[in-house]
Amino acid sequence: MGEKTVTACLLIVGDEILSGRTTDANLPFIAKRLNELGVRLMEVRVIPDAEARIVETVNETRAAFDYVFTTGGIGPTHDDITSGSVAKAFGVKLMRNPEAVRRLERHYPPGALNEARLRMAEIPEGAALIDNPVSAAPGFRLGNVFVIAGVPRIMQAMFEGIAPLLVGGKPVLTRSVSCTVGEGTLAKGLGWIQDRYKSVDIGSYPYFRMGGFGTSLVARGTDAALLDKVIHEIAELITSLGGTPSIDALTG
Amino acid sequence: MGEKTVTACLLIVGDEILSGRTTDANLPFIAKRLNELGVRLMEVRVIPDAEARIVETVNETRAAFDYVFTTGGIGPTHDDITSGSVAKAFGVKLMRNPEAVRRLERHYPPGALNEARLRMAEIPEGAALIDNPVSAAPGFRLGNVFVIAGVPRIMQAMFEGIAPLLVGGKPVLTRSVSCTVGEGTLAKGLGWIQDRYKSVDIGSYPYFRMGGFGTSLVARGTDAALLDKVIHEIAELITSLGGTPSIDALTG
Repeated sequence: MGEKTVTACLLIVGDEILSGRTTDANLPFIAKRLNELGVRLMEVRVIPDAEARIVETVNETRAAFDYVFTTGGIGPTHDDITSGSVAKAFGVKLMRNPEAVRRLERHYPPGALNEARLRMAEIPEGAALIDNPVSAAPGFRLGNVFVIAGVPRIMQAMFEGIAPLLVGGKPVLTRSVSCTVGEGTLAKGLGWIQDRYKSVDIGSYPYFRMGGFGTSLVARGTDAALLDKVIHEIAELITSLGGTPSIDALTG
Repeated sequence: MGEKTVTACLLIVGDEILSGRTTDANLPFIAKRLNELGVRLMEVRVIPDAEARIVETVNETRAAFDYVFTTGGIGPTHDDITSGSVAKAFGVKLMRNPEAVRRLERHYPPGALNEARLRMAEIPEGAALIDNPVSAAPGFRLGNVFVIAGVPRIMQAMFEGIAPLLVGGKPVLTRSVSCTVGEGTLAKGLGWIQDRYKSVDIGSYPYFRMGGFGTSLVARGTDAALLDKVIHEIAELITSLGGTPSIDALTG
C-alpha cells in the first residue's frame, strides 16, 4: 500500500487461558484499538507463566515486530513473573523503582503495603512506567515492549495511557457485506474481484446463526473510496447470483 | 509429576481475529477438551492468512509440541490457504482427494459442486481425512498436525471426531477457592504453600465484578487428594487473614 506498515504482536501470559478456565477478553480490545491507531496486529501468542518461555518469546517477537504488548503476570503473587522475565530477556536488572513505590504508598492504606505488594514496584532498569489509574501498580515500557496488566479493566486504562505514544501508519478501514449465498457459490467471482484490487484484502467468512448459514464478505484497506468500489462490486456479484446483499457501515 | 506430559499448540489462522472484527470462540473449547483428554495446551498463536507465516509457524510448532491443531482457512474462497500452506510445510503435494470429492458430491445438490467447492477436496498427499458431519468438506491430519475448520459449530464436530485418536497423559484437575481478600495480602502465605507442594501449580487471579475486587486461587495438578489438601490450606490462610473462603467444586 505504499507507506510503511507498523506491526505489533500481543503476548498473553497466562496458564488460566491455556487451561480454558478463563476466556481472554483483552485480544479483541487491543486488536480494535491498534487497528484504529494504524498499527497492524500481526500475531498473538498465548504462553504459560514460565520464565524460559516468556524470555524466548519476548526476544523473538521484539526483534520481529515494531511493538510488542504483554498482558498478565505483573501482580504481587509467586506466579507473577512477567516483569522479571522481561528484564531477563533484555539482560537488565529488576530493581525497586522509587516512583513506583511512591505510587503504591499513595494508593494503599497505612500498613497495607507489605513486601508482596512491593514486588509490584520491581521494574526492569531503564524502563519507563505506564500509569495505572485503577489500582496504582504500574506497567512499564522497555524498548519496544509494553508490559501491562491482565485484568481487563486495568489493561484498558493502561492501554489508553500509552495509545498516544504509538506511532501508526494509515488506519486500516473495513467494509463488509453479508448475504445468504454460500461462499462456494461466490468464490469464483470473488477471486476475480480480489485479483483486480491487490491493495484491498478481501476475506470471506461463513457463519451460522439463527438457524442458517450465511457469508460475510469483508474488504480491508486504507483507501475508503476504493473499499466502497470493491464492496459495491461484491454486492453486484451477490445480486447476480440471486442473493440479497446487506452492506454494513464503514468501520475501523 | 512423574509421567510424561503430552503437549499441544493451537494455531488460529485468521486475519479477522487479528483485526478485532471477529472474537475467537475456539480457544476456550479446545483448551477445555484437551485438558479433559490429558493433553496440555502449552501455546496458542493467532497468525494471519499469509502462506509464509503459516508454513514457518507449522514447522516450528510441529517440532516443538506433540500435537498441533490449526483452525480456519479451509473453505472454498481465495483467502482459504491453510491446506496448501500445511502441504508446503511438510514438503508434499496438494492433491484432489477422491474420498473428499465423494463426500462433497453426496452433500451438495446436483450442479452445486463447482470448481471453488472442489478446492475443499484438495488435501495434502498422505494426509488422513477428518470427518465433517456438519457440511461435509473434511479436515485432515498430517503427521502430528490436525487441520480443522474455523466455524465453531464445524470445528467442534470435527474435534469430537479426532478426540479418540489423541493419546493424553493424566488429566489435569482444577480446584479453586475465592475470597475478597486482596492478592497482595494473601501473597506471602500463598508462596509458602506453593513452596511446600511443588507438584501442584497454584495460580492467583484478581477479578473485578459486581462492584468489587476479589481473588480466585486456583490449584492445578493430577492428584485429587493433594489438590484437596492444598485448597483447604489456602482456605485456612484466607480465614486467618479475616476473609471468607468460598471453595468451588472439583473440575477438569
